[in-house]
Amino acid sequence: MRVIVDAMGGDNAPQAIIEGCCIGLCQHPDMHITLVGDKDIIEKEIKKQGCDISRIEIVGTTEVIDMAEPAVEAIRKKKDSSMVVGLKLLKEKKGDAFLTAGSTGAAVAGSTLIVKRMKGVKRPAIAPLLPTETGKVLLLDGGANAECRPSFLAQFALMGSIYMKNVEGVENPALGLVNNGAEAGKGNELTKAAYKLIEKLPVNFAGNAEGRDLVNGDYDVLVCDGFTGNVIMKFMEGMAKALMTMIKKELGASVRTKLGAAIAMPAFRNFKKSMDYKEYGGALLLGIDGAVVKAHGSSDAKAIKSALRQVAGIIGGDVVNVIRNEISKTKIED
Amino acid sequence: MRVIVDAMGGDNAPQAIIEGCCIGLCQHPDMHITLVGDKDIIEKEIKKQGCDISRIEIVGTTEVIDMAEPAVEAIRKKKDSSMVVGLKLLKEKKGDAFLTAGSTGAAVAGSTLIVKRMKGVKRPAIAPLLPTETGKVLLLDGGANAECRPSFLAQFALMGSIYMKNVEGVENPALGLVNNGAEAGKGNELTKAAYKLIEKLPVNFAGNAEGRDLVNGDYDVLVCDGFTGNVIMKFMEGMAKALMTMIKKELGASVRTKLGAAIAMPAFRNFKKSMDYKEYGGALLLGIDGAVVKAHGSSDAKAIKSALRQVAGIIGGDVVNVIRNEISKTKIED
Repeated sequence: MRVIVDAMGGDNAPQAIIEGCCIGLCQHPDMHITLVGDKDIIEKEIKKQGCDISRIEIVGTTEVIDMAEPAVEAIRKKKDSSMVVGLKLLKEKKGDAFLTAGSTGAAVAGSTLIVKRMKGVKRPAIAPLLPTETGKVLLLDGGANAECRPSFLAQFALMGSIYMKNVEGVENPALGLVNNGAEAGKGNELTKAAYKLIEKLPVNFAGNAEGRDLVNGDYDVLVCDGFTGNVIMKFMEGMAKALMTMIKKELGASVRTKLGAAIAMPAFRNFKKSMDYKEYGGALLLGIDGAVVKAHGSSDAKAIKSALRQVAGIIGGDVVNVIRNEISKTKIED
Repeated sequence: MRVIVDAMGGDNAPQAIIEGCCIGLCQHPDMHITLVGDKDIIEKEIKKQGCDISRIEIVGTTEVIDMAEPAVEAIRKKKDSSMVVGLKLLKEKKGDAFLTAGSTGAAVAGSTLIVKRMKGVKRPAIAPLLPTETGKVLLLDGGANAECRPSFLAQFALMGSIYMKNVEGVENPALGLVNNGAEAGKGNELTKAAYKLIEKLPVNFAGNAEGRDLVNGDYDVLVCDGFTGNVIMKFMEGMAKALMTMIKKELGASVRTKLGAAIAMPAFRNFKKSMDYKEYGGALLLGIDGAVVKAHGSSDAKAIKSALRQVAGIIGGDVVNVIRNEISKTKIED
């Protein structure tokens, strides 16, 4: 397999991206990587880190898309950016997947404009994996579509279920519709209508999922509009951080609690690890006619390594083809 | 001050409600309570708990509205329910506030139909206080309006800011608009339009609040539609529970971590307390022409006691009159 990697995207690029790729190559003997970005900088970084260059190819580019740039405009104007060139290589089948830690907006816009949606897909969705009490849950849409129609949510349900089965190996993924009440018939106009569409789909629909049940392990896939999904995804990050700060403050409050905390340290380390997005890889753009994975903007080498493991799973599970096939078979009313 | 209390509403009614009221009376020497509900049961419970009956009045009712009943229908049909009778007493100025742990839907519908909205208020909002890293934040709307117009959000901003100033004593409350991006111009149609309206208001608008910043202490008031607010409020509860379960699991994993946890126990107890909704009281229905406070459905005596403390603050701060006055002065485009 060959993974095309945006070497310039993300807060810690290119150093962390290239370091993560070097580790990834060690872990996946059948992986080849195409690094896209400033050739000189990449070569210097590879040398510095002593990577195995036999499975690395470099495609030089001269531009970078900033995190804050208006996305569509940036994709249209910066033709020689690492993002645009990387996506073009994927489109031309010069690789099996594209990985970037760059701007989410640019990744979505670029994927839609360059790689294009699959035939029959209404809207692509960002699908991050989030930790739960017992494992993990796929949330979509995590932010590609701030406004959604009911049929979009229904299609997200279908694509998300296929992902969890084919990449994460969950036999019959339990699907929840994020809603403001558990009973059928609850919701806003969007979720009420989406509920009726999802009921008819060939998925394991476990009904409405209230906020308090999102991370209790009852669901494998959670579907919502991209506004709600974005708030949930980022709120989870914020909550985990706030809770750790609050616990630390309490643990530092007295000699006794400090001592207890020092003794119990391995537990906190494990807990932190289970909440760490860096362990969970990136988010696949589901519905794009090619495997595009968006890693967290502040990814370090570990996060890139995890994302490459996920990319290998996506390629191995042939997810893009399975989804394409399923979408063509499943009619969803609009 | 006289507080009208729904003795029959909530998972632990009437026992927990009455116990909470007895404690509340001890803590607030100037408080009188009117308990609304089944007279025999209430009298028996009061006797059992040995409450001071000199400041308790009982108004007997024969019906109870269930948590799961369709709200508007229940309010219309069950004329002799504790919820309907309690709200009527408030409307007739037989008390300064009404407190219920019963169905949220029925409390909102009943307040709107019986007590009515303030003149000029577009929609009432549920406004719970949530814990943050450094204190607390008022979230509204927590679920009264699943569909909102931009002008509703603007009015929530105004009412929430007045609440935090007059009840919580925050001098110049920082207001955030819950959104899917920090920059101005981000958002869905609703938040983009609401942003422009809020900018013109006499509030301390600190801009868009992303999910990751909701509980970091940067904001005193957070405004969003009732669908998003409901998901956030319940997700916070679910996250806190999930994280505690995960930490407990890690702390129980070895003899060493068990020992550390036992020593550090006071810290965990304090942390749990700071995350406990029972400490934070209930949620005021802002925009109703009377003080209606909704306590958590699973309130125990401690939660009712906290809610009564909050009710005393609402009455003391004359919040309903201050909001009525401010609303009449502040024109918001529709």
